[in-house]
Amino acid sequence: MNIVVMNCNTTASMTEAMASTARSVAAPGTVIIGMQPNWGPDSAEGYFDSYLTAAAVLDRMTQLPDDVDAVVMAGFGEHGREGARELLTVPVVDVTEAGAHLALMLGHRYGVVTTLRRAIAQISDSLTTANLLGGCAAIDAADLGVLEIEEDVEATRKAMLVAAHRVIERGAEVIVLGCAGMVGLREYLEEELPVPVIDSIEAATKLAESLVGLGLSTSKYLTYAAPRTKKRPGWPISPSQ
Amino acid sequence: MNIVVMNCNTTASMTEAMASTARSVAAPGTVIIGMQPNWGPDSAEGYFDSYLTAAAVLDRMTQLPDDVDAVVMAGFGEHGREGARELLTVPVVDVTEAGAHLALMLGHRYGVVTTLRRAIAQISDSLTTANLLGGCAAIDAADLGVLEIEEDVEATRKAMLVAAHRVIERGAEVIVLGCAGMVGLREYLEEELPVPVIDSIEAATKLAESLVGLGLSTSKYLTYAAPRTKKRPGWPISPSQ
Amino acid sequence: MNIVVMNCNTTASMTEAMASTARSVAAPGTVIIGMQPNWGPDSAEGYFDSYLTAAAVLDRMTQLPDDVDAVVMAGFGEHGREGARELLTVPVVDVTEAGAHLALMLGHRYGVVTTLRRAIAQISDSLTTANLLGGCAAIDAADLGVLEIEEDVEATRKAMLVAAHRVIERGAEVIVLGCAGMVGLREYLEEELPVPVIDSIEAATKLAESLVGLGLSTSKYLTYAAPRTKKRPGWPISPSQ
Amino acid sequence: MNIVVMNCNTTASMTEAMASTARSVAAPGTVIIGMQPNWGPDSAEGYFDSYLTAAAVLDRMTQLPDDVDAVVMAGFGEHGREGARELLTVPVVDVTEAGAHLALMLGHRYGVVTTLRRAIAQISDSLTTANLLGGCAAIDAADLGVLEIEEDVEATRKAMLVAAHRVIERGAEVIVLGCAGMVGLREYLEEELPVPVIDSIEAATKLAESLVGLGLSTSKYLTYAAPRTKKRPGWPISPSQ
Amino acid sequence: MNIVVMNCNTTASMTEAMASTARSVAAPGTVIIGMQPNWGPDSAEGYFDSYLTAAAVLDRMTQLPDDVDAVVMAGFGEHGREGARELLTVPVVDVTEAGAHLALMLGHRYGVVTTLRRAIAQISDSLTTANLLGGCAAIDAADLGVLEIEEDVEATRKAMLVAAHRVIERGAEVIVLGCAGMVGLREYLEEELPVPVIDSIEAATKLAESLVGLGLSTSKYLTYAAPRTKKRPGWPISPSQ
Amino acid sequence: MNIVVMNCNTTASMTEAMASTARSVAAPGTVIIGMQPNWGPDSAEGYFDSYLTAAAVLDRMTQLPDDVDAVVMAGFGEHGREGARELLTVPVVDVTEAGAHLALMLGHRYGVVTTLRRAIAQISDSLTTANLLGGCAAIDAADLGVLEIEEDVEATRKAMLVAAHRVIERGAEVIVLGCAGMVGLREYLEEELPVPVIDSIEAATKLAESLVGLGLSTSKYLTYAAPRTKKRPGWPISPSQ
Repeated sequence: MNIVVMNCNTTASMTEAMASTARSVAAPGTVIIGMQPNWGPDSAEGYFDSYLTAAAVLDRMTQLPDDVDAVVMAGFGEHGREGARELLTVPVVDVTEAGAHLALMLGHRYGVVTTLRRAIAQISDSLTTANLLGGCAAIDAADLGVLEIEEDVEATRKAMLVAAHRVIERGAEVIVLGCAGMVGLREYLEEELPVPVIDSIEAATKLAESLVGLGLSTSKYLTYAAPRTKKRPGWPISPSQ
Repeated sequence: MNIVVMNCNTTASMTEAMASTARSVAAPGTVIIGMQPNWGPDSAEGYFDSYLTAAAVLDRMTQLPDDVDAVVMAGFGEHGREGARELLTVPVVDVTEAGAHLALMLGHRYGVVTTLRRAIAQISDSLTTANLLGGCAAIDAADLGVLEIEEDVEATRKAMLVAAHRVIERGAEVIVLGCAGMVGLREYLEEELPVPVIDSIEAATKLAESLVGLGLSTSKYLTYAAPRTKKRPGWPISPSQ
Repeated sequence: MNIVVMNCNTTASMTEAMASTARSVAAPGTVIIGMQPNWGPDSAEGYFDSYLTAAAVLDRMTQLPDDVDAVVMAGFGEHGREGARELLTVPVVDVTEAGAHLALMLGHRYGVVTTLRRAIAQISDSLTTANLLGGCAAIDAADLGVLEIEEDVEATRKAMLVAAHRVIERGAEVIVLGCAGMVGLREYLEEELPVPVIDSIEAATKLAESLVGLGLSTSKYLTYAAPRTKKRPGWPISPSQ
Repeated sequence: MNIVVMNCNTTASMTEAMASTARSVAAPGTVIIGMQPNWGPDSAEGYFDSYLTAAAVLDRMTQLPDDVDAVVMAGFGEHGREGARELLTVPVVDVTEAGAHLALMLGHRYGVVTTLRRAIAQISDSLTTANLLGGCAAIDAADLGVLEIEEDVEATRKAMLVAAHRVIERGAEVIVLGCAGMVGLREYLEEELPVPVIDSIEAATKLAESLVGLGLSTSKYLTYAAPRTKKRPGWPISPSQ
Repeated sequence: MNIVVMNCNTTASMTEAMASTARSVAAPGTVIIGMQPNWGPDSAEGYFDSYLTAAAVLDRMTQLPDDVDAVVMAGFGEHGREGARELLTVPVVDVTEAGAHLALMLGHRYGVVTTLRRAIAQISDSLTTANLLGGCAAIDAADLGVLEIEEDVEATRKAMLVAAHRVIERGAEVIVLGCAGMVGLREYLEEELPVPVIDSIEAATKLAESLVGLGLSTSKYLTYAAPRTKKRPGWPISPSQ
Repeated sequence: MNIVVMNCNTTASMTEAMASTARSVAAPGTVIIGMQPNWGPDSAEGYFDSYLTAAAVLDRMTQLPDDVDAVVMAGFGEHGREGARELLTVPVVDVTEAGAHLALMLGHRYGVVTTLRRAIAQISDSLTTANLLGGCAAIDAADLGVLEIEEDVEATRKAMLVAAHRVIERGAEVIVLGCAGMVGLREYLEEELPVPVIDSIEAATKLAESLVGLGLSTSKYLTYAAPRTKKRPGWPISPSQ
């Protein structure tokens, strides 16, 4: 089984970290293919970048290998999943949803911990339209400055821990990590916290395997039917291959 | 990996059918163990029987093999999952939840089709407390008499098909089967319907494998902490083994 | 009029305290009959015990006196009420609902105060499926250790008072006591608090009298129709009388 | 115990019919006092008349007898209950709420049947702010012309029956009558329908007795504290007595 | 275009302040006519006064000039708007709604700041029935004593600022002022706060102009159809002019 | 005042029709500037095209004239508004929101009528994240084939009328047109229907004027703060001007 893990930004090291995380939990026989857009922000924080990544990811999806069995969209809280469900015939698993699905089976309510406060509203919107906000006790952020997050892994981990304690205080009994590519974060938090911690890419990888294993894919009945054939001048952005 | 598929009623043929369904989708290396309560109704329709099965299933859970890795609770819409999450340390997947989780990734809204109209309210309650009713367009029933369902497989299939069309009409783009042990029903409906059809036991089996594969289990932090040690005269009902 | 007050646990002193509370508010001519299950936990905290008590209470309900006019289910937040509504033809009043019903007529929003934090989720579920969570500002717990609650009445009262102040702070203008059998607690809290305090067994007793007085009982139309006649090996648990 | 049944309109025959209904279910020792506003519409249908009756009822409440123990506000879906809760120290039971409270204990979901379609939105608003819409499957109306309702009792009954069947079809298992003063309507519908039928004035009378019996009254803590002393030129409308 | 700004209380200086605020933002050619009821409270805080003002405002609305194009109802959180929509054929804009409408376009969630804590529930009800509570992060109050608010403008401003900071802390990114007639408050808060501040009368004035400009007015289809012709003894309260 | 009306697709005739509609209701002194993306679909139906238009519109927004006072985003149900709110400092009005805002002031509940059934889910998502779905009775579609809609204006009008009747039947008392660029559609429907009909571009134009007139713009406090400065290889798509 071939699963594409599609990073939403253009930073190759993050793409590789995501693919590596997926590989670490994939079943024997599952091949993980890391991919990233050909253009767009090198990281996504906020709606503006999120909408850019949505189009960039859809653009890149016109270049998927032929034998892909499922796609994991690896941008926590980012837009685009419904468009991918229209475009593709293989199942599409969004990491934002994946963490929540597993969390709901492990605790009465779950919480999300992310890096920047400005992303809270966007994650809330994404869980809302996925019909998964109901069991979410809180979404909170480490709230470090961006530079600190990028440069000081230790400070980031500690800030994530503090935010996790806040969402537990607000009723969460499971933590979903709302970020990607921080190696070892799940392990660190699991050691420090009294609750399970879910890495969203790990979750999405297993859910993608599950759907493929059951022969299930996106409903093409109405909402996610294939896009109409029409003129789209200038699209795709990337040259066809 | 050893997964117990726990039927909620005392009909051995249904237990076997459920285990067989689980086996048909299990990964290589996954051993499916069919189990059923030692007492209680031979089928469950309605809250009264549902509460009986909850206690009977919890009673039976005191007799699980030592090396179980996860439990699938195979009573659609039936009570008890939160009690099992307290009692056990391995992950517990309820088929009611499992179908909904996968469905939400395949269509904008899903619908549930069950056999008897009186079960609709109970399924709605179960999805509500699981925080999964939000994406449910409709729950509907074949609404045959009980005898017809038990004796006339063909009539039941057709009635399920009619009910499925009704929930599609009401907005569902994916169908979750709210019953168990009807061999071949998913295949029949998939052929007749323009939308994906999810067998809940299949879904639960893959989700159980996913949780075990990720090393995740129930949060024991607060709500699902182990039951207190106390006097429970007359309990367990079944003699200890 | 004969009203059974059904304790959900097997502790006779609590059954008697509950019946006594009900008697203290019953109308002239109302006879209160305290009953308790023949088996099960001596107190119920958490879902596991709650599901045990549901079955144990339903088991005991097969032994109701013939001339009962209504049943009060006296386990705050415990399961089973819908099963009782199927089984019986007389009206069934759950204390969890009863307190909320009266509270909604007395203040803009109400709060629930219970003894143990682990029960909060379960009470929330019970109010949710009863369609009564909407007006609930908060559910909070005294959060003493179990031993303290059982052995130190004074500490428990004070902890309940502190929790009550917290739910008032969160918007409650009426307090519903989410526990039973603590003699004098309502009076103590009413003296200390600026808001009305509702004892749920008192509330349920008057609501049961009201339904009987109006000739109203459970709808047997669909959801709460009598349980089907079928085989239930090993049931009832208690020998028939 | 003295309970005022306050009609919201100025039609004496309706006031008497309402008081008579209340008396028919009152406990021995309960005295029912029918009252009505000194001014305002002779019937209330729609928000405009509803707001008039709210002020007219509050105006009339300045003239309550000294020894009143509770007030039933007998205008289904009409405004004013929260104002009465501020003004008075005795408990206030609104018939709109009362029917819903009892209905929620008798069936999984209830429905409301009223006379005119234009009142549906207003009843929905009233149940919404009372936090009781959650369990309401449908509100529907007989939808006769006003003249027909006033002049042709038989046609009205039949139209109410048709509307009741519609709300049952939409999921109601209990019917709350959203009108007052139609003698014999509950009995007629109960005979024709497979579900319990609740007369709201009957319900409110028993709930008022319940609150008084338990020594409970409106929370004066914040929202329903007594109105501030201030200048209100031209108020009360009615000359003081 | 002629717009009536209808104060809900009988204090002429507030009526003038409101009209003046409206005039300060009105388009060239828009004439603002300040009006107030002929009777009723000189300020409205709480449901009792709110219901009085609803009737008093409706009473006054029978005396509108013939050439009015729209009415702004200038009582934040006060009742009556739906009655006015029945009574009048010109569009009616309630200031409670108006602030929320604009706020929702400026930030992810908004908050309301009002003067007295007892009004919070009432504002919440008003936004709920207007279907606008969904985007409201918090409603909070300055919580000064009434005397302080009336006599000490500076203390009031500071208390409003503190309350605004609390609602921002709870997630609001736009502030709606839930009071009227405090000259200069919007400017003061805008200077002190990092978020936009909306004066509800200003908002309502522009929305009224917008509706008139588009030739839109209240739907008379069903709910807001004109009040029935009927007997309303004693109404209108004010002598006809 | 200069308002950009930004069409989301690349069809110049639709851009012109939208600008013309906006001009027809703009205040004296308001200059309407029609704009459209430099690339992307020539019409947008479905999530895939919607996400493309979001990025294409944001791309085009880097080329706005300097003296723009507000932007109307003229793609009903399309994505991107929150990104535009981050990118720009002037107010952004989405036509999807605009129609709903005005509709809520005109009737108890509103309905949306659009052209294609597949867009219903997407419009529902857009109203949900805008916190405006609460008052929406129904969203329905004309459900003609695409060719029919494009080629047969008369058939489209009639199909829109039929859909409008359906949403009225489901409780709508105001109709919001969920499409753009069909000249004369509002007038046609207003003549045929008993309820007000809102053209979303007209509504958005007046709301944009209102915000500018009040000196209000997007909150830059947290969620809609300006996008971070970072590397975005390949962006903007369009050559800078």
